[in-house]
Amino acid sequence: MASEALVGIELVFTNDLSSQYSSALSSGYSFLCVDLFHPKLIHEENLTGCPPSHIPRSDLVYEKDGKSITKSIVGKVSANIDVDSNIVRIRESSSKSLMRELSWAAHLGLPAVSIRVSRPFNPNLARLLINFIRGEYIPIKIWLVFPMTNEILDPSGDDNRNGELITEDKLSLSPWHWWFNLSTLTADITDALGVVLELPKDLPDELVISRWFSEPIVCLLVHTDLFLTNAKGYPVLPKSHQRVIHRFFKLNIQVMLTGACRNDKGYVAYQQYISWLWKSQDAPDLYEEQSKGLEDQLQEPLQPLRDNLSSTTYSIFEMDPFKYQAYEDAIYKALCDRSSKCQLNGVQEQSRPEVNKLHTNDINNSSSTRQVVMVLGAGRGPLVNATINAAEKAQCKVRIYAVEKNPNALFTLRSRVDCEWRGLDVHLIEGDMRDLKTSEKADIFVSELLGSFGDNELSPECLDGAQPMLKDDGISIPCSYTSYVAPLQSLQIYNETRRSKDVTNKVGFSMETPYVVRLRNCQLLAPPQEAFVFQHPKKDLSESNEREVCCKFKIPQDSVVHGIAGYFEAVLYKDITMSIHPDRHSPQMVSWFPLVFPLEHPIYVNADSQVTFHLWRLVSNRYVWYEWAIIEPQPTKIHNAAGHAYKIAL
Amino acid sequence: MASEALVGIELVFTNDLSSQYSSALSSGYSFLCVDLFHPKLIHEENLTGCPPSHIPRSDLVYEKDGKSITKSIVGKVSANIDVDSNIVRIRESSSKSLMRELSWAAHLGLPAVSIRVSRPFNPNLARLLINFIRGEYIPIKIWLVFPMTNEILDPSGDDNRNGELITEDKLSLSPWHWWFNLSTLTADITDALGVVLELPKDLPDELVISRWFSEPIVCLLVHTDLFLTNAKGYPVLPKSHQRVIHRFFKLNIQVMLTGACRNDKGYVAYQQYISWLWKSQDAPDLYEEQSKGLEDQLQEPLQPLRDNLSSTTYSIFEMDPFKYQAYEDAIYKALCDRSSKCQLNGVQEQSRPEVNKLHTNDINNSSSTRQVVMVLGAGRGPLVNATINAAEKAQCKVRIYAVEKNPNALFTLRSRVDCEWRGLDVHLIEGDMRDLKTSEKADIFVSELLGSFGDNELSPECLDGAQPMLKDDGISIPCSYTSYVAPLQSLQIYNETRRSKDVTNKVGFSMETPYVVRLRNCQLLAPPQEAFVFQHPKKDLSESNEREVCCKFKIPQDSVVHGIAGYFEAVLYKDITMSIHPDRHSPQMVSWFPLVFPLEHPIYVNADSQVTFHLWRLVSNRYVWYEWAIIEPQPTKIHNAAGHAYKIAL
Repeated sequence: MASEALVGIELVFTNDLSSQYSSALSSGYSFLCVDLFHPKLIHEENLTGCPPSHIPRSDLVYEKDGKSITKSIVGKVSANIDVDSNIVRIRESSSKSLMRELSWAAHLGLPAVSIRVSRPFNPNLARLLINFIRGEYIPIKIWLVFPMTNEILDPSGDDNRNGELITEDKLSLSPWHWWFNLSTLTADITDALGVVLELPKDLPDELVISRWFSEPIVCLLVHTDLFLTNAKGYPVLPKSHQRVIHRFFKLNIQVMLTGACRNDKGYVAYQQYISWLWKSQDAPDLYEEQSKGLEDQLQEPLQPLRDNLSSTTYSIFEMDPFKYQAYEDAIYKALCDRSSKCQLNGVQEQSRPEVNKLHTNDINNSSSTRQVVMVLGAGRGPLVNATINAAEKAQCKVRIYAVEKNPNALFTLRSRVDCEWRGLDVHLIEGDMRDLKTSEKADIFVSELLGSFGDNELSPECLDGAQPMLKDDGISIPCSYTSYVAPLQSLQIYNETRRSKDVTNKVGFSMETPYVVRLRNCQLLAPPQEAFVFQHPKKDLSESNEREVCCKFKIPQDSVVHGIAGYFEAVLYKDITMSIHPDRHSPQMVSWFPLVFPLEHPIYVNADSQVTFHLWRLVSNRYVWYEWAIIEPQPTKIHNAAGHAYKIAL
Repeated sequence: MASEALVGIELVFTNDLSSQYSSALSSGYSFLCVDLFHPKLIHEENLTGCPPSHIPRSDLVYEKDGKSITKSIVGKVSANIDVDSNIVRIRESSSKSLMRELSWAAHLGLPAVSIRVSRPFNPNLARLLINFIRGEYIPIKIWLVFPMTNEILDPSGDDNRNGELITEDKLSLSPWHWWFNLSTLTADITDALGVVLELPKDLPDELVISRWFSEPIVCLLVHTDLFLTNAKGYPVLPKSHQRVIHRFFKLNIQVMLTGACRNDKGYVAYQQYISWLWKSQDAPDLYEEQSKGLEDQLQEPLQPLRDNLSSTTYSIFEMDPFKYQAYEDAIYKALCDRSSKCQLNGVQEQSRPEVNKLHTNDINNSSSTRQVVMVLGAGRGPLVNATINAAEKAQCKVRIYAVEKNPNALFTLRSRVDCEWRGLDVHLIEGDMRDLKTSEKADIFVSELLGSFGDNELSPECLDGAQPMLKDDGISIPCSYTSYVAPLQSLQIYNETRRSKDVTNKVGFSMETPYVVRLRNCQLLAPPQEAFVFQHPKKDLSESNEREVCCKFKIPQDSVVHGIAGYFEAVLYKDITMSIHPDRHSPQMVSWFPLVFPLEHPIYVNADSQVTFHLWRLVSNRYVWYEWAIIEPQPTKIHNAAGHAYKIAL
């Protein structure tokens, strides 16, 4: 998050851009949005069909003290341009004008141009924008201005221009639909487009606001007439507007002020207010802090069984303040429960002193009071530490077996056994936990094999393999985990998955691979539902780890499903849980971001219809993989069928 | 079309396959469809959850006199297998059984297996089929058996198996939907799937029948109980069924008989009847004859302006029996009209004999009675011939200029001028008609520059270029042409366009290129609507040849739009027209197949909703191209935006 708010100001056309620029900057604004051409001339052209005889500015006005100021200017495309007018003559002259203005903006090297969209369907605008973007070598952003909701449409205003009636479409389709239509038509260049969202005076329903969070909002457009004047005479926004702006700030957006100055203190006061709003945000929490720069970026899920984790990866995970405390608490409770049970056994044994006597001199090896804890996948040892701490707190003797297959992690473990844990009953076992053979069985398994989707790092298969070394009444920490799925709308993530086509050489495979993503620019379309449950230890080891689930989600409003978000929740022991479920995320737990199952093509869903999602977890001798498909309202292909794009190696 | 009908027979399980085979073959059947495993055993497995202790046949029964008979066998998957049952146990054991049966069929090397589909949604079947097909190296076809309509569902029969209730879905969704769902889930392997369509006793509405014509039907399943017995005691089908079968025969399908023999003459009589039906088809017309083997194949549209046509191409076009006769008729009428006008002029001139006298000795050069006809793009001369014939018939003197830019065609033209047309007033002009400079102007332009979509071989641009050489009151043949568009459903063509991805190195470009296709396995979802109109000569040569059209089609039933079919209709002169519009195709005219604008992703459309299609014709200095998009019910991207995938060179 930038330390300062980026606030721009939309100004009316004058030929003295240089003064406008100086005065805006001195009022604290970071950028200006000004007309590219004189609005009047464009209007004349539309009426007469002839281009104006001269362009209204030379590019010299974009200089200030001999330096170019273009980097601080957003060029505003003339409002009269209407390339999708029903009137052919207007359409044709508008197309020419639009291309001329865009070309002028590109010539000037402006970072962005802004175009107001006021029709539900804009096929010609879409076509011309693609044409323009495809033809330009220097990147330029197209800012498309949409009202947040229909309500601010003024039938006597812009929308009634050219004498056309407001169509039924316009009333039934919200501006979000206009954007959806336009962004679909321009699918090949959406990266070049950004949404400028105009805040209305009366804020709409939460659903109408929240659907915009999945779109590439670059800027909020705030009218001066939204402001109230406070007791001290300063402009302030209503609380409700403050809250909405704060939410959008999370997307790192800019703000643009528009409208006449209605405050005695001048435009500077508005800028100061927005800057204050920016600074009044809650400080980012640890999760936000840790994930900075990773938002909405696709990461390939780890395969710790196949690949040895790196030192960096271990150290990132070990920093999690919640996770290891939760483990320690769970181990503590499990040790207490086991010890009291053992002590109970001990008491019973003490009633048979003659038997007990035989063992007094090898009491250290007695399993009646000492608990055997096996840390499966010990890594660099954080769970060994958690076990040592828990045992100390529980005043319980433990023997710890640290099982690890990563030879690099073993160097660290060995040194800790020799130094840090010297004198403690900690033993190292090198190798794969699935081949675990120890002389004694464990009271407690402790493992941290969970992925973003719970089972996706093969915890079930690993723990099943080790289970023969767990006592019949032994405890596994975690003792269960459940995955959750929810339909996801996020143009950003859809664009990212499509883009990654170019990285892998296998065309289209990137659309059939699950990704780990710190979700931000997105919207969940329905509450998450339970997918797969695994429990440890398993009652019957021959039971399959294959799973199949069919979830039906009711979608409240017109939406686009770009993928399915996946989460997990684990019960470590009794009431000690870890969760990345969005409704009950463990506080400060930074080790996992959600998983996303992408869809090859977005699925458009009408309000109140049902999305049926089918997900399989499949297991062969060598691999585990997921397959997924939408069945309703329209089917998709089965993604990753036969694991052809993505498999997790056993 | 095969000269013989391919008729198969579905038989109940016996272990004596060899006798079944002999007896079916001696009754004239070409193939057998028999259970792969004994139905009873599979049923037991489903009940007990245990696989049967032995497989019911050795592969030796698939031999006859030491020779394998597998190539004539379609293996029938056990009817009890229900991999999408709601009951987990049945689903799991069914999945194992299905894979075992499919694997057995592959081991035997059967050309196909047949599976009856009786659920609206079959995600597990889809998944297992993909798994199977992806794992097999030897190609094997999956025949999926669907009833043509819901009506033959018998609630007491198969569909009520496993005690499950018939769901609402099943009643509201037709078997076509079941197939649509399944084929979408299996999109990656649909090439391996074929539909076996079961004819019902009561034929459904035409809409229900015709929607199947866009699907990959391989076989019709005909029950013996559909047959009546005629006066002579032979089995015959009702007229309505005969008509439907005749229509499906056009797709080159096979027929499979099923059910007990209900005729004294034995199974042989049914085979004879189907064979008779096959032979009683109308002989293929010239269009069908000429396009044999090209059905539903994608052809790149010609670019005669950029590429010189080959001798083969010319000779194919010259064979068209309709086209050149139509041209001759049009030229004849135009010559008659022009001559009478000239004679009228002549009469007027004769009233001024003193003026006329001055010209008597250069009467051959007089334009008052001699018509100047310019054949623009003369090729190897067919239109020169048509002009000569027309002039002879009209008893009109003509001077013919044959304009041609293809140096190879010029060799032929030159030799014809020297020999065949010696003594006639035929002159050769080498070069591009757009640079045409002649000492005299033409009375009549004759050109054959039309493509499947009318203007798509750049007739407008070519004729505009030549127009300065046409007299102000001159005639262009053709004098106008109009293109038409209609939404198209065709899984076959969608699959073909996707496949062509592999041919071009430019990924996805194949989905944004128009194709010329002899349409067969398809369905038009609505009547064609007018797209672009061009008229010649143009009143104002500065008028643009860019065009834009937005067509709205009302779709009567749930459908999938795979692309947009394009046609043209041309007025050569007055009432002489040529048309490939499907409702009024010129008889025997074989020169053009329709154009198809494909869609990158199929668009699912609900009954009674509207498909809005937007098409542009765009012109730059060097190229002409089309862009297209669906706007409603859901938008698509703009295909071929900025001409990035397909352009026609000027």
